[in-house]
Amino acid sequence: MSDTVGNRMYALAGRMFPICRSITGDGFRKSLKILCEEVPDIKIYEVPSGTPVFDWTVPKEWNIRGGGIYRLNGDKVIDFKDSNLHVLGYSLPVNEVVSKKELLEHLYTQPNQPDLIPYVTSFYKERWGFCMSENQKNSLSDENYKVIIDSDFREGSLTYGELIIPGESKEEILITSYLCHPSMANNELSGPVVLVELMKYVQQLKKRRYSYRFVINPETIGSITYLSRNLEILQKNVVAGFVLSCVGDNRTYSYIESKYGNTLADRVLQNVLKFHFPDYKRYSFLKRGSDERQYNSAGVDLPVCGFCRSKYEEYSEYHTSADNMDLISPEGLQGAYDVMEKVINTLENNYYYKMKCMGEPQLGKRGLYPTVSQKGKYCDVKATTHFIAYADGKNDLIDISNRIGVATYTLYPIIDQLIKYNLIEVVYER
Amino acid sequence: MSDTVGNRMYALAGRMFPICRSITGDGFRKSLKILCEEVPDIKIYEVPSGTPVFDWTVPKEWNIRGGGIYRLNGDKVIDFKDSNLHVLGYSLPVNEVVSKKELLEHLYTQPNQPDLIPYVTSFYKERWGFCMSENQKNSLSDENYKVIIDSDFREGSLTYGELIIPGESKEEILITSYLCHPSMANNELSGPVVLVELMKYVQQLKKRRYSYRFVINPETIGSITYLSRNLEILQKNVVAGFVLSCVGDNRTYSYIESKYGNTLADRVLQNVLKFHFPDYKRYSFLKRGSDERQYNSAGVDLPVCGFCRSKYEEYSEYHTSADNMDLISPEGLQGAYDVMEKVINTLENNYYYKMKCMGEPQLGKRGLYPTVSQKGKYCDVKATTHFIAYADGKNDLIDISNRIGVATYTLYPIIDQLIKYNLIEVVYER
Amino acid sequence: MSDTVGNRMYALAGRMFPICRSITGDGFRKSLKILCEEVPDIKIYEVPSGTPVFDWTVPKEWNIRGGGIYRLNGDKVIDFKDSNLHVLGYSLPVNEVVSKKELLEHLYTQPNQPDLIPYVTSFYKERWGFCMSENQKNSLSDENYKVIIDSDFREGSLTYGELIIPGESKEEILITSYLCHPSMANNELSGPVVLVELMKYVQQLKKRRYSYRFVINPETIGSITYLSRNLEILQKNVVAGFVLSCVGDNRTYSYIESKYGNTLADRVLQNVLKFHFPDYKRYSFLKRGSDERQYNSAGVDLPVCGFCRSKYEEYSEYHTSADNMDLISPEGLQGAYDVMEKVINTLENNYYYKMKCMGEPQLGKRGLYPTVSQKGKYCDVKATTHFIAYADGKNDLIDISNRIGVATYTLYPIIDQLIKYNLIEVVYER
Repeated sequence: MSDTVGNRMYALAGRMFPICRSITGDGFRKSLKILCEEVPDIKIYEVPSGTPVFDWTVPKEWNIRGGGIYRLNGDKVIDFKDSNLHVLGYSLPVNEVVSKKELLEHLYTQPNQPDLIPYVTSFYKERWGFCMSENQKNSLSDENYKVIIDSDFREGSLTYGELIIPGESKEEILITSYLCHPSMANNELSGPVVLVELMKYVQQLKKRRYSYRFVINPETIGSITYLSRNLEILQKNVVAGFVLSCVGDNRTYSYIESKYGNTLADRVLQNVLKFHFPDYKRYSFLKRGSDERQYNSAGVDLPVCGFCRSKYEEYSEYHTSADNMDLISPEGLQGAYDVMEKVINTLENNYYYKMKCMGEPQLGKRGLYPTVSQKGKYCDVKATTHFIAYADGKNDLIDISNRIGVATYTLYPIIDQLIKYNLIEVVYER
Repeated sequence: MSDTVGNRMYALAGRMFPICRSITGDGFRKSLKILCEEVPDIKIYEVPSGTPVFDWTVPKEWNIRGGGIYRLNGDKVIDFKDSNLHVLGYSLPVNEVVSKKELLEHLYTQPNQPDLIPYVTSFYKERWGFCMSENQKNSLSDENYKVIIDSDFREGSLTYGELIIPGESKEEILITSYLCHPSMANNELSGPVVLVELMKYVQQLKKRRYSYRFVINPETIGSITYLSRNLEILQKNVVAGFVLSCVGDNRTYSYIESKYGNTLADRVLQNVLKFHFPDYKRYSFLKRGSDERQYNSAGVDLPVCGFCRSKYEEYSEYHTSADNMDLISPEGLQGAYDVMEKVINTLENNYYYKMKCMGEPQLGKRGLYPTVSQKGKYCDVKATTHFIAYADGKNDLIDISNRIGVATYTLYPIIDQLIKYNLIEVVYER
Repeated sequence: MSDTVGNRMYALAGRMFPICRSITGDGFRKSLKILCEEVPDIKIYEVPSGTPVFDWTVPKEWNIRGGGIYRLNGDKVIDFKDSNLHVLGYSLPVNEVVSKKELLEHLYTQPNQPDLIPYVTSFYKERWGFCMSENQKNSLSDENYKVIIDSDFREGSLTYGELIIPGESKEEILITSYLCHPSMANNELSGPVVLVELMKYVQQLKKRRYSYRFVINPETIGSITYLSRNLEILQKNVVAGFVLSCVGDNRTYSYIESKYGNTLADRVLQNVLKFHFPDYKRYSFLKRGSDERQYNSAGVDLPVCGFCRSKYEEYSEYHTSADNMDLISPEGLQGAYDVMEKVINTLENNYYYKMKCMGEPQLGKRGLYPTVSQKGKYCDVKATTHFIAYADGKNDLIDISNRIGVATYTLYPIIDQLIKYNLIEVVYER
């Protein structure tokens, strides 16, 4: 495979796929360290179990080494080695012989997808359990089974990573994803690998108008922890934020609105998707499900929206063993990366623009307008004249792009020309 | 009939149906006294004929004892005893023999409904007249007829009733109807009988956030009179008002917008109807016709909208002898009552709500969230998490209900739980 | 032809049609003087070549006396005398024998309309050229041709006309058109001839609320010149402006939005067209093309929209020899004039209105309301009662007309009655 961004992201996801991650524990830590190999500047934080974080408490750290269900003759029914989805997330340890009847009370299946192992967790209530396909469950015929889960809970810590890349302004763009699911590809690894490439992209920019804050944490409890430790600065500085989730398949693009759907984050993501992938899907905030829940929660109220390819909960492989490396692809990851790169560039250029001359400038004398005037011959300068008309200091770049129906990427060379001829000035505030 | 609210209202309407009411006179007074038997606290006001009320003058009091058209041999053609619609409202007295030709100039029929007697009035221009069916008119074949109307005008008064039920706040909810039509059921008695049951409902509430002002007056001249005597306090205190009219049939529900369609009255009535009777009909203010005309008039500008089942002017029996006790029903009245009871309860609970914790609260530890996380299993807590997200102090209950698509009645137990766990506070202002 | 406004305008256009106009020169001057015969108060301004006007410079004055293409035996191929469209606008002089190959580089045709001579110009780049039909071009078979253009450039001036008619207020209505195209009828002469009749109409008004500023200039460079000399006063005084262009055919009516589509000019033109020509065409500002470009340019930002019958660029005869006197008609011109007359009258009456009484006034006692009340009989007073309801000081006449769905022309007699009965007052500000 050639060294395209898409191939690099896909390979990185493949390397991390086998690791059993959860909201705490060594799987998360090991995965995060692999990301740090790519971007060594990522800073790692550990928050001790028991720390109060808003209305929650950082849970005990959970680690698991193995487990399974076996017939009394030792034959394997299911084993953690075959799929780490087989053990209920945060399961208590167990090592005993149980009747089939008792076992059934500890089994989780997805009856409407009888071939697949579902991903199930019980983070905040102590129980033990196994996940398997409905078909496997239906074939259980012994009276008793040996059940083993070699897990433990300890006073450890919750881990997260953060990378802040300063820009000219203290105003920040927040981009975040999570890293807490076991072996699943789209709803886990796609987000972090795209995040890592975006970090690299922002790091190499020669000029950054905004500062960038990248965060990678366990979903829900991780973002709550992160918010509880950084709320003041986030509320002061973040002007737009994006939660990346399920960004690896190549079926569609999805946008989940912020709470009121009207932030800079919404505006820029809508604009980029409208011009580059006009058949993208737009979801109301009522369809939220990832960390945009916390970022938009009452009192927190950050300008954050969600970005996916096929949205979590909406694709059939979601939270099952079918969400594997075949579901995602280099092209799928690349597409999501490209959208976010465009989002970043649009934000960086999203100034208010103001013409320095009254009336339309004489473009013809600068070679920007046809010198012969004949009907049907102007079309190629319409984007320029439309931009000029709305560059009156009342519209930012996104406003103008939306009003005149021209992608920001088409406007960049026009702006460059206008600046070159000293016809336009950049203003920061309306 | 069992003692349901619907049956009580229907029986009360039936008791009042035979009385000949008009905008002044003993019929109105007698009807109002029957309502006072139900709610003795209603206060009765008499405003003398000749009193200037805004641009109008309280008219002379009109009373009628009988009348009819007779053949010269004494045979009855029509008689007031058979239907008090037969005499033109506010008709001058008459007692003479007239030619058929002259009689025809004093007859009012509804040619497109040839079997029905129309309801016609001439409140402000003196004339005498009779109403009959088009068919009856066409069967007139004598050369001369005896016409008798035993009515009189005198310096009397205009009568109205008012009940003010104080609440914690001086802010008021106004609910009003009228009582000035003769024997018609939907467009007359449905409004007053629902009003009376709403008075009882509000009286028995243990806690009232708002004060309630119930008014029952003759339509148009009555509300003008009432406004002219109470304008200052109404403009100061009324936050939402409702004119009840034609609330007794069971074909549909109708809402008539206030002048700009954006008051609290509009918002609450839209919300209740949307969730409980989503196929209700919404009418522009341009379709107004009852006392919302006066309450929304220029300079008065109170936040008042109209509520009907089948809207006046829109159902075929309107203002004819077919608007009788068969048109309305206990169920029809009950349905209208239920809507208004929900309106009252929604207003009483229409606070701004504000979460006391940052981030989503941990609902699971309070038994409000499933402890096992598996896809497709959250649906029953969506109303809770959506409510929590928008309980940020920027939305009142109606806003939240509309945004998240959940009826306020579904939200009440959720709010109770959140208050019980001290997760939320009530704020009065945005 | 009788002396209707339409006939007068058509005759005047016919008189001016043969003159060869351009953005400067004697053709423009001669045409403007013909307009001054109609309205002697028009003031003529001359701005010297070389004057800087915003980002532009007033060009040299161009005049042409004749020209053509001839076979070497003297036979005419095309001649300026047959159509002044044959010479490229602002063409350099030429007098030589050229090869067919060289000639072809100087020929302009409209290949998709092979019978027509296109109108082509090169105002700001020096070149010589001829325009002819595609068919004519294809029939050229000689090896060499004689080409003659008897034109010259000199340090002269750019000419424009202005008429200011003062009113009670310094606030101004701007109405403008241009006069710089050679022999074309709709896209040239229709605008000036309608403008002249509007000048006469405004001059004879007994009472003028607003002042009126009529401007007639060469398109683009002329409006830039005019703006550069009058910007401050225009920005201070103009409350609504209209660019008239292509107002002579009778196929449709067209409205081109101002930059944000929300000015008084937009509101009044939309209102008039909606009620009188509801199938009019509305064009976004992105479809602009005449002097509304300059009036709405960034920094200038005047409240100006465009008005056409068939819009420039949208009808097939546009900028060709087919845009001749057969394309326009007295009826077409009259229709456009009528719209603008209604626009003027609506603006003159566009006050805020406020009822002087509380509640609905008693219209019946003033003969404005039926004295008998019977269903289905009110329709003719709805406009009155609706107007009264919204005459609360919050709406201007256009707001009320739009809200209640009644043309302003229907409201004038109602307003007159309400003023007569002292029921209403006029207020200037909301």
